[in-house]
Amino acid sequence: MSKISSRPEHGGNLNWAAAIAGCSPEDILDFSASINPLGPPQSAIAAIQESLTSLSRYPDPQYPQLRSALARWHDLPPDWILPGNGSAELLTWACQDLAEQARVILPVPAFGDYQRGLQAFSARVYPYPLMPDVSLEGLWLSPPQTGLLLNNPHNPTGHLWTIQQNLSLLDSFDLVVLDEAFMDFPVPSEQQSLASYVQDYPNLVILRSLTKFYSLPGLRLGYAIAHPERLKRWQKRRDPWCVNALAAAAGEAVLSDREFQQQTWDWLGNARDFLFRNLAALPGLAPLPGVANFLLVKSQYSCSQLQLKLLNSNKIFIRDCLSFPELGDLYFRIAIRSPEDNQRLIGALSSAIGELNSKE
Amino acid sequence: MSKISSRPEHGGNLNWAAAIAGCSPEDILDFSASINPLGPPQSAIAAIQESLTSLSRYPDPQYPQLRSALARWHDLPPDWILPGNGSAELLTWACQDLAEQARVILPVPAFGDYQRGLQAFSARVYPYPLMPDVSLEGLWLSPPQTGLLLNNPHNPTGHLWTIQQNLSLLDSFDLVVLDEAFMDFPVPSEQQSLASYVQDYPNLVILRSLTKFYSLPGLRLGYAIAHPERLKRWQKRRDPWCVNALAAAAGEAVLSDREFQQQTWDWLGNARDFLFRNLAALPGLAPLPGVANFLLVKSQYSCSQLQLKLLNSNKIFIRDCLSFPELGDLYFRIAIRSPEDNQRLIGALSSAIGELNSKE
Repeated sequence: MSKISSRPEHGGNLNWAAAIAGCSPEDILDFSASINPLGPPQSAIAAIQESLTSLSRYPDPQYPQLRSALARWHDLPPDWILPGNGSAELLTWACQDLAEQARVILPVPAFGDYQRGLQAFSARVYPYPLMPDVSLEGLWLSPPQTGLLLNNPHNPTGHLWTIQQNLSLLDSFDLVVLDEAFMDFPVPSEQQSLASYVQDYPNLVILRSLTKFYSLPGLRLGYAIAHPERLKRWQKRRDPWCVNALAAAAGEAVLSDREFQQQTWDWLGNARDFLFRNLAALPGLAPLPGVANFLLVKSQYSCSQLQLKLLNSNKIFIRDCLSFPELGDLYFRIAIRSPEDNQRLIGALSSAIGELNSKE
Repeated sequence: MSKISSRPEHGGNLNWAAAIAGCSPEDILDFSASINPLGPPQSAIAAIQESLTSLSRYPDPQYPQLRSALARWHDLPPDWILPGNGSAELLTWACQDLAEQARVILPVPAFGDYQRGLQAFSARVYPYPLMPDVSLEGLWLSPPQTGLLLNNPHNPTGHLWTIQQNLSLLDSFDLVVLDEAFMDFPVPSEQQSLASYVQDYPNLVILRSLTKFYSLPGLRLGYAIAHPERLKRWQKRRDPWCVNALAAAAGEAVLSDREFQQQTWDWLGNARDFLFRNLAALPGLAPLPGVANFLLVKSQYSCSQLQLKLLNSNKIFIRDCLSFPELGDLYFRIAIRSPEDNQRLIGALSSAIGELNSKE
């Protein structure tokens, strides 16, 4: 069904990239999807293997073990947590709540799936431009009946707003949906999660993902943190068994996997610094500072051309930003990968840019 | 989170039953969930094992391999098929379409999740009583702007309407959502699916499940068959990656597993006949004829009492019908299981009824 001619809407479709590169999806070096390259952790795979015998039973719609594990992780009561089939599934229900507001402010550029969720319930969306300085400065004054959908750390820029900056938004908006899908990536002392404030703000909804940090996007697992009454309403809208049993088991296991968490933090800081320095040193490229496991790069070259060049010559897949209208063809995004992969990317980019410059 | 005191809403919660019986959920002989006891097929487990290496990649939102396999199975073009995270997830979107109609006719008793889906989008629901003769007789005349949500074979009665009976409904209703979750269970020559008529009726939506026949409710996998324009609209409402990669792989595998399919048909006919005859022979019980992998049983005893008795004495869990207001405490439903398990159920029921009668 995937045709070479049609660029994937979400920008991360490996089948499309493999068709361009003339290889199988497994042979693509994928810098487009922001997934932790150290995973999935063995603890997740072991938990999945153990749970294969339980596939012929329906999951308990309350997911008591997984909820308890997540509640312990955030030091919250279990009914403040709702697991979902990826945070994208929970985004759908958050958007239905946002659509009940008179208007929804959406800082842009924004993850493409936000528009999908908001449009699904005909929300009145007002884009708020973040570029060039990734600032929320103008947002503190907003009329009543206004919702906000923001992610922190921000995708695709990698910017992190502080707890204090975000707390002041909670006084300005009737509903704030904060997507913290990448919040596990900064070391704990630098994280700026609002999870511990949720009991003070019934107008706060936090979305979290377990598939990026733990490298399980094929398994689908995320969760929402919000007032129990809100989560009970969501549970009545959606189907009761929406988290598969293998994801529920893996989620419990990875939360206790301190070794994998530490390995990830140890790897990420160094690898991101290396990429940032080496990208900044390439002529015509300027990476934005970011705290997550990806970097947004401003480029003086057409990024879709650069993307095709890297696919054809190196089977390397970078994320074009054509699906972000505010960025367009002069930005690309890359995931942080292993030191060897990152080195390969820098080498390939250097050659590609050299070729582009020699043609001028 | 599951308390003994609170009966599960969907009637099939093993944790609740285990707490009553004072054992672990694994030790319950579960007649409450209508799942094929022969599964999951080895082909599914092998496909899942093979796909564990792909968990760190996002699924292709088009699910091209799975869609093609389902399309071949039904002899339809792939864009007439949309896989989902269980048919319950697709029910949600079908209900959003139904809610756009001025009214929705819901033949009752009905699977409890239908009310959840219809209420999620504030549909105006008109129950249509099926009991006692499980007839759709009065349904052929309906005003314009009316939708119908029906399942065939019907849960909980097990009744099967013919293709001809259902085709005439398509001329009377603006939208017919036909849940064929149990349609794989009758032998192919006796199935009455409307799948091959979907290209003639843009007002027809069929929902199918792969988790009941193939015993994979913990994995979550179902699909819708409907006009491509409708399915594209649904795809835009929901998150793009809603089927996990392991379910997608298992789905492809089981469709080719002719041996498992034949084994299931061979087992079911005999096992259901045995249960039907032996239930009918017990004093005060009257099973309804059914074509699926369960039987609805009318009882002169309180079924919630019978249920507790079987849990306490035999760790056997039957499905009470308290969540079906039209049936209440005088009906119970049982899944068809292996000959040994079915024999155990009959023995346990016989003792329980003997005790109840001796107390009178």
